[in-house]
Amino acid sequence: KPLAQGRKGGVIVGDFFCIILGASPYSIKCFDKVLGLYFSDGKRRVDYVLTYHIQKSGSTRRQSSKFGDNSFIRRLRRSLSKRSSRAPLQPKEDPEVAAQEHQTDYHEDDKRFKRDEFEENLQKTGLELEKDEGVYEVKQGSSVVEKIRMFIHKVTAPLHPKVDTSRAQCQKPLSHPFSREKQHLISGSEWMDGWMDINNIYIFVACDIFIESCFCSQLLYEQWASYSVFYKYQPIGLIRKYFGEKIGLYFAWLGVYTQMLIPAAIIGVIVFLYGCATVDDNIPSMEICDPRNNITMCPLCDQACSYWKLVTACGTARASHLFDNAATVFFSVFMALWAVLFMEHWKRRQMRLNYVWDLTGFGEEEEDEKVKLTCTDRLPAYLTTVVMMGFMIIVTFVIVFGVILYRISIRAALHMSSHPVVRYNIRATVKTTAAIINLIIIIILDEIYGAIARWLTRLEVPKTDKSFEERLIFKTFILKFVNAFTPIVYLAFFRGRLVGRPGNYLYVVGSYRMEECAHAGCLMELCIQLCITMLGKQLIQNNLFEIGLPKLKKMLRRRKSEMVSIQEPVPHKTLKRYEKDQLLGPFVGLNPEYMEMIIQFGMVTLFVASFPLAPLFALLNNIIEIRLDAKKFVTELRRPIAAKAKDIGIWYNLLRGLSKVAVIVNAFVIAFTSDFIPRLVYQYMYSPDGTLHGFVNHTLSYFNVTDFDPAFVFFTARYKDYRDPPWSSTKYELSKEFWAILAARLAFVIVFQNVVMLMSDFVDWLIPDIPKDISLQIHKEKILMVELFMKEEQGKRFAARDNQDNCTVPLSANQRPPQPRSRPVSQANCS
Amino acid sequence: KPLAQGRKGGVIVGDFFCIILGASPYSIKCFDKVLGLYFSDGKRRVDYVLTYHIQKSGSTRRQSSKFGDNSFIRRLRRSLSKRSSRAPLQPKEDPEVAAQEHQTDYHEDDKRFKRDEFEENLQKTGLELEKDEGVYEVKQGSSVVEKIRMFIHKVTAPLHPKVDTSRAQCQKPLSHPFSREKQHLISGSEWMDGWMDINNIYIFVACDIFIESCFCSQLLYEQWASYSVFYKYQPIGLIRKYFGEKIGLYFAWLGVYTQMLIPAAIIGVIVFLYGCATVDDNIPSMEICDPRNNITMCPLCDQACSYWKLVTACGTARASHLFDNAATVFFSVFMALWAVLFMEHWKRRQMRLNYVWDLTGFGEEEEDEKVKLTCTDRLPAYLTTVVMMGFMIIVTFVIVFGVILYRISIRAALHMSSHPVVRYNIRATVKTTAAIINLIIIIILDEIYGAIARWLTRLEVPKTDKSFEERLIFKTFILKFVNAFTPIVYLAFFRGRLVGRPGNYLYVVGSYRMEECAHAGCLMELCIQLCITMLGKQLIQNNLFEIGLPKLKKMLRRRKSEMVSIQEPVPHKTLKRYEKDQLLGPFVGLNPEYMEMIIQFGMVTLFVASFPLAPLFALLNNIIEIRLDAKKFVTELRRPIAAKAKDIGIWYNLLRGLSKVAVIVNAFVIAFTSDFIPRLVYQYMYSPDGTLHGFVNHTLSYFNVTDFDPAFVFFTARYKDYRDPPWSSTKYELSKEFWAILAARLAFVIVFQNVVMLMSDFVDWLIPDIPKDISLQIHKEKILMVELFMKEEQGKRFAARDNQDNCTVPLSANQRPPQPRSRPVSQANCS
Repeated sequence: KPLAQGRKGGVIVGDFFCIILGASPYSIKCFDKVLGLYFSDGKRRVDYVLTYHIQKSGSTRRQSSKFGDNSFIRRLRRSLSKRSSRAPLQPKEDPEVAAQEHQTDYHEDDKRFKRDEFEENLQKTGLELEKDEGVYEVKQGSSVVEKIRMFIHKVTAPLHPKVDTSRAQCQKPLSHPFSREKQHLISGSEWMDGWMDINNIYIFVACDIFIESCFCSQLLYEQWASYSVFYKYQPIGLIRKYFGEKIGLYFAWLGVYTQMLIPAAIIGVIVFLYGCATVDDNIPSMEICDPRNNITMCPLCDQACSYWKLVTACGTARASHLFDNAATVFFSVFMALWAVLFMEHWKRRQMRLNYVWDLTGFGEEEEDEKVKLTCTDRLPAYLTTVVMMGFMIIVTFVIVFGVILYRISIRAALHMSSHPVVRYNIRATVKTTAAIINLIIIIILDEIYGAIARWLTRLEVPKTDKSFEERLIFKTFILKFVNAFTPIVYLAFFRGRLVGRPGNYLYVVGSYRMEECAHAGCLMELCIQLCITMLGKQLIQNNLFEIGLPKLKKMLRRRKSEMVSIQEPVPHKTLKRYEKDQLLGPFVGLNPEYMEMIIQFGMVTLFVASFPLAPLFALLNNIIEIRLDAKKFVTELRRPIAAKAKDIGIWYNLLRGLSKVAVIVNAFVIAFTSDFIPRLVYQYMYSPDGTLHGFVNHTLSYFNVTDFDPAFVFFTARYKDYRDPPWSSTKYELSKEFWAILAARLAFVIVFQNVVMLMSDFVDWLIPDIPKDISLQIHKEKILMVELFMKEEQGKRFAARDNQDNCTVPLSANQRPPQPRSRPVSQANCS
Repeated sequence: KPLAQGRKGGVIVGDFFCIILGASPYSIKCFDKVLGLYFSDGKRRVDYVLTYHIQKSGSTRRQSSKFGDNSFIRRLRRSLSKRSSRAPLQPKEDPEVAAQEHQTDYHEDDKRFKRDEFEENLQKTGLELEKDEGVYEVKQGSSVVEKIRMFIHKVTAPLHPKVDTSRAQCQKPLSHPFSREKQHLISGSEWMDGWMDINNIYIFVACDIFIESCFCSQLLYEQWASYSVFYKYQPIGLIRKYFGEKIGLYFAWLGVYTQMLIPAAIIGVIVFLYGCATVDDNIPSMEICDPRNNITMCPLCDQACSYWKLVTACGTARASHLFDNAATVFFSVFMALWAVLFMEHWKRRQMRLNYVWDLTGFGEEEEDEKVKLTCTDRLPAYLTTVVMMGFMIIVTFVIVFGVILYRISIRAALHMSSHPVVRYNIRATVKTTAAIINLIIIIILDEIYGAIARWLTRLEVPKTDKSFEERLIFKTFILKFVNAFTPIVYLAFFRGRLVGRPGNYLYVVGSYRMEECAHAGCLMELCIQLCITMLGKQLIQNNLFEIGLPKLKKMLRRRKSEMVSIQEPVPHKTLKRYEKDQLLGPFVGLNPEYMEMIIQFGMVTLFVASFPLAPLFALLNNIIEIRLDAKKFVTELRRPIAAKAKDIGIWYNLLRGLSKVAVIVNAFVIAFTSDFIPRLVYQYMYSPDGTLHGFVNHTLSYFNVTDFDPAFVFFTARYKDYRDPPWSSTKYELSKEFWAILAARLAFVIVFQNVVMLMSDFVDWLIPDIPKDISLQIHKEKILMVELFMKEEQGKRFAARDNQDNCTVPLSANQRPPQPRSRPVSQANCS
C-alpha cells in the first residue's frame, strides 16, 4: 500500500484544516506533480493545498460569506519562483493550530480570527494567497420565466448539498472514444505498476485522484453521510467521483425513487384521511354496528367457538372502511401510473447522468468466456437449480401453511380460555403474533435463500461475470420475492375463500377447519400483515443487519487485532490509516441494497390498493436508508473498487416487471379482497332504493341450524357467503347473486387492467426517454464530429486528387447519392 | 432533364443488347468519366459498356453457361491507347443488330450466333474483349455443418433472385461519419447544380449511378417485377440501390411479412382441416341435426317470421363447427405469439439491413421547424381535427347501423315472399348482399377518409415534414381502421346480444327488432364478412385501384399528349424516354401501400380466432401484392426520389399496437362469440355424464307462447338464451347459468390475456433485437475505431510532450481512472 505509507509525513492543521504534505520520496514527487498547477499568471507554481471546514451554523455562514459560500475548498498558494520548485518541501508545523485538533465546537469568531491570523502569518513569510471566490453565478434573466426559475432556484437552494459545483461538475469532452481510450490505458493494474515510474503521466492522474479523494471523502461525510442533511439532494457527482459510476447510479436511483415517493405518500395519506373522514357515513359499517340488527352468526371455529352477534365485529368493520373505499380504487390507478412515471423519470435521469458522466458511447465490455462448457455439461447444474428453486418455494409455502395452522390452533385454544379479557383480545393477539412470526421467518429465510442462490449460481458456472451476477440476482429475487409475498398473497386472495359452508366446512390436516375472515375482516388482516412486514423488515434489516452487524464485526476484528498486538511489543499505540481501514468490513456489492429496495417497491405497488399508507412508510424508510447506506459506504466499509456502469442493469427489468404485475394484482385486490364490487352490484342491481341500506343483510346467507345438528332448536344463523337459503329447492348451493357478483368482479379486473395498461402505455409514449436538452446536445456533438471528419476526409481527398489528377478516387459502392428523378435508362429503353 | 437529353445518341444493339453511348457534350464527358475504368493491366482505358439479356429458358442457360451463369452483365471493353481517350466518341451504328429491336422470342441459337458474330466483328475492328466470369464461388467446407449449409444453399438457390451478387452487395466502410458526410455532400440539389461542372467529383458518382440504374432497372424488371419469379426472394439490395432505403425497407418488410405468413397459413389450414375432420363427431351439431329432437323455436322476426324447427339450422351449425372448435383457441394463442415473432424477426432483419446499408450511425436529420405557431394558434385546428374525426367515426357507425337496418328489413321482406326457394335462401342472400354492401361502403369511405385526413393534417400545420407524415398516417389509420372493422366488431360482439327476449324484444327506430343469430350462427356470419372483406378489399383495391386506375390515367395522359401533338407538326413519331416517363403516374408515397398491409395485418391477427383461413388469404394476396407493387414501381410510376430511412417509422408502432390489441380481441372472440366456454361449462358443471350430450337443450330457454299472445294455444317454444323458464318464480329473468357462464367467459378472458401476454413478453425477451453476428461486427468496428483514435491521440500527446517536456498535458476532469482500493485520505483522517 504505497499510498498509505506515503502519507506518514502529512501534518494535520486546525480542527478541520488540513495541509497535506508529502514526506516520503514517492509522495513528495507525487505531490510535486499534483501541485504542478500554476497560478493565474501561468508561471509561478502552486505548492500547498489547504482545505478547511466551514461551520454549518447560521452565524458562520453569514460571517464567512465574504469568501463566497460556494468556495468550500480553498487553496492557499505560495508563490515560489519556478526554479526553486524542485527544492524539498519543509513540513510546516504551526503549534497553535496543530494543537486544536478535534475541537469542532470552537467559537466561530475566535476561529475566524485565528484563520485570518494564520493567513497573515503565511503572507508575512512570503506566501501569496489566491482565494477561490464563488464561481457559481446565477445569470440574471430578463424574462418572467427566468425570474421564476431564479425564484425556484432560491427556494430550493438549501436542498442542494454544499458541494463546490466547479469541482463536482465535469468538463464534457466531445466524444466517447477519447474517454474509452483513457479508461483503457489507466486500468487498475497499470496504475499499481506505474506507481514507481514517476515520469509516467498516469502517476499524475493517480495523484490527482489521491488528493481529490481526500476532499471527496471529507465532503461526502459532511454533505451526504449525515442524517442532518436528509432533506438535501445527494451530491451524485461527488459520489460517482469517489465510488465510481455503479454506486453513483445506485444512489441516483435511490434518490429518484425517494423523491418520487413524496407525491405518492401525500396522496396515500389523503386517501387514508378520506377514509377516516367518511367512516361515520359508511352505511355498511353503521348497519353492522347497529345493535337493532340483531343478527346471529355461525361460529367461526368448531367446538370452542359459539354463535356470535354481528354487532361485535363493529370495530373491524369501521376500521376496514379506512382501507376499503372508493378512494382506494382511484389510488390504485394513481399508483400504477406513478410506477410508469417513476420508470420514465428514472430513464431520463439515467440518460442525463450518462451524458454528464460521458457514458453515452460506453458499451458493455464483452468479456471473454471464462469456461467453455457444452449444454450437456451444464444440464445437471440447471436441473439442480430448478429442483432446488422449486423445493425452496415449496418450503416457503409449507412454512406459511404452518403459520396458518398455528393461527387456527392458537385461536381455538384461546377461545377455550375462560378469561373474558383474553377472549376479547383473541383476534388482535392472533393476528399480531402470526404476523410477527411470519416476519421473523421471512428474515431468517431471506439469509438462507441468499446463500442458496449464491451456491446454485456458482454451480451453474456462468460464462461471464456479468452473466453470473444476473443469474444470481434473478434467483435471489425469485426466492426472496416468494418468501416476502407468500403470506400476503395468501391473506389477500385465499384466506376466507376456501372455507366451505356451515355443515360442510373444509378441513385440512385432520380436523383443522380453514380460517374465516370476520365481516370485511380480510382486508384489515392484510393491512396489519403489510404494515408489520414493511416496518419490521425495514427496521430489523436496516438497523440490525446493516448497522449493528458491521459494527459488531468491526468490534470483533479490533478485539482480535488487539489480542495480536498484546502478544507483540507495541511501538505506536495509534493505528495507522491502512490498519484502521483493515478493520472495516469488505464491500459485498450493491445487490443486497437493490434487493431490499425492489422488495419494498413491490410492497408499495403490488398491494397498494389495500394499504394506501405503504408509500409513506417507504418514504420515511428511504430517507433514513439513503443516509444509512451513505454512512455505511463512507465509514463502515472498505472503499469499493470503482466500477463503470451505464445503467442499473437487470434491476430495471425487474422493476418494470413488478410494475406490470402490480396492475393485475391491484385489480384483483380491489375486485376480490375488498367489498367494492359487491357494494356496487348491490347498489345498482339489488338495492330497492339505490343506496347501500340492506347491503349487510344481502351479503349474509341463511343457515338452518337443525341441518347441522338435529338436536338444536330450530333457528337460522347467518354466514358470510352468497348461497341459497335453506328453504330454496337448491339449498346451500351458490346463489345467482354469487355468480352475478363474480362476473362483475371479473369484468372489473378486465376493465381495470386494460384501462390502466392503456394509460400507462400512453404516459410511456408521452414522455420521451431522452430529455430534450440532452438529445439536442448529443445531436450537436454528433454534428461537430461529422464536421471534423468531413474536414479531415476532404483534406485527404484533395491530397489524393492532387497526386492522381484524375477522378479515380476510391468511392465505396454503397455511398449512393440521390438518383435523378427521371428514369434515365429504364427497362423499356434497353429492350 | 439533362440526363434524358444526354442519352439521345445511345444505340441499342440486339433484342436486349444495349451499348450506351453519349452523344451530347454532357453525356459524352460523363461517360468518358464513367468508362474511365482501366483494364486489368491498369493502363488501357475501357470505353464501352455492353449489356445483354440471357434468355431464361433451360436451353439458353445451358448454352450460355460457358460465360458463367452469374456474369449477367458483361462488359465489352475496347482497348484504346490512353492518349486517344479524350477524343470524341463516334456513335457506332451496327445496322444488323440495330434493326432487331423488340424481338424477344428470337431463336436462341440464331441469337448466340449473332452475338458471336458481333463480338467477332468488334474484335476485327481492333476491340479487345474482357469477359467477366462468375465471381460467386461457394467455399467448400470441411465440416458437416458446412456441408449442410451448402446443401441448404443448393436447395434454396432457385429461391434467390439471379442478381449479380458482386454488384448488388455492398462494400462496407468502417464507420458512419464517412457515409454521413458523403450523403451530406452529394445532396440532391448539389447534384443538379454540379451536373455542368464536369471537373466535379460528384459527377462521377452521378454517372456511375446513371449507368447503374440502367442495369438496376433492367434487372429489377426481370428478377423482381414479374409474376414468374413469385417464389423467389426479392433483390432487396438492388431495390434499395434503385429506389433508396425507404422503399427498400418497405419491400423488405413486405417480404418478411409474407414469409412469416407461410407458417401461419399452414397452421391455419391444418386447424381448418381439423374442423372439417371432426365435424361429424361434433355432438352439438349432431343434436341440432337430429330430427328426433323436435324443438320448436321462437320466430326470428316479427310478423313475417313464424315458429321454426331447430333442425333447419343444421347446416349452419355444422358449418360453424369448422371455425368454432378447440383448435381455434390454440390457433389464437399461436397467432398472438406469431405476431410477436414477426415483430422480433422484423427488428432483427431491419437491424441487419441497417448494418449492411451502413445506416447504423444514421440519425434522423433534425428538420428546422417550418412554422412557428403557439398553442393558441393551433387550438382551432386541433379542435377541428377532434370534431371531424369524431364526426367521421360517427358517420361510419351510422352507415353500419344503416346496413343492419337494411338487413333486418330485407329479411322481413324476403320472409314474406311466397316462393319456397327464395325463403330457403334467405339467410345466405341477406348475409352476402349485406357483406358486399359493407365492402363497397368501406372502399368508398376509405378514399373519402384519406382525403379528409390529408386536409385535417394540412390544417394543423405540423412543425416538420416528418411530423406531418406521422400525423397524417395516424389520422388515416384511425379512420380507415374504424371504417374497416366496425361491421366486423358489430358482428363479433354485438349482433344477437342486444335482442331482448321473447315478449320483450328490443326495438330500434320505431319497429325494427334487432336481429338475432341462428343457433351458433353469429360466428358464421363473422366468417363470411371477414372473408368477403378480405378477398373483396384485396381484389378490388389491388386490381382496380392499383393497376386499373394508373393504367387508365396513363392512357388518358397519352391521349391528351397525342391531342396536343396532332395540333402541332410532329417531327418524330416515337416518343423520347423523358416524354414516355412524363406519361407515367407520379409517386404518391408509400403510405397507401403500408396502410393496406396494416389493415390486412389487423384482419389476420385481430379476428383470427373466428377465421383461421385469414393468414392463407393474406399470404396469397401478398405474393401477388409484392410483384404487383414491384411492377407498379418499375413500370407504372415515375421513379421516386430516393429517400434515406432507418426504420419503417410509425408503422412499427401501429403494428405493435395492433398485435397487443389482437390478444384481447381474440380473447373476447373466443369467450363471447364462439360457444367454446358454454360448452366447457356445460361439460364440467352441468352435464350429467361429462359429455356434451344435452348441450343444445341447455342453451335454449323456454318461452310460454301464451305470455306473448293469450290467443295462442298453450305450448312452449324455445329461444337461445339463459333465462329462467316460465314456471319459475322469477320467469324470464337471467338464470344462474347465465351468470355462471358469464363469469367463466370473463375468467377465460383474464387468463387468456395474461398468459398470452406473459408468453409474448417471454418470446420478446428470448430473442435478442440485434442478431449475434451483427452485434459482434458492430463491436469489432467500434474497437477498430477506438484503436484508430487511440493511435492518433497518442501520437498527438507524444508530440505535445516533446514540446512541453513536463506533465501538464490537459486531462479533462472526469476522465477518472480506477481509484486505489485503500482509502488514502478519508474523513476520519482529515479530522
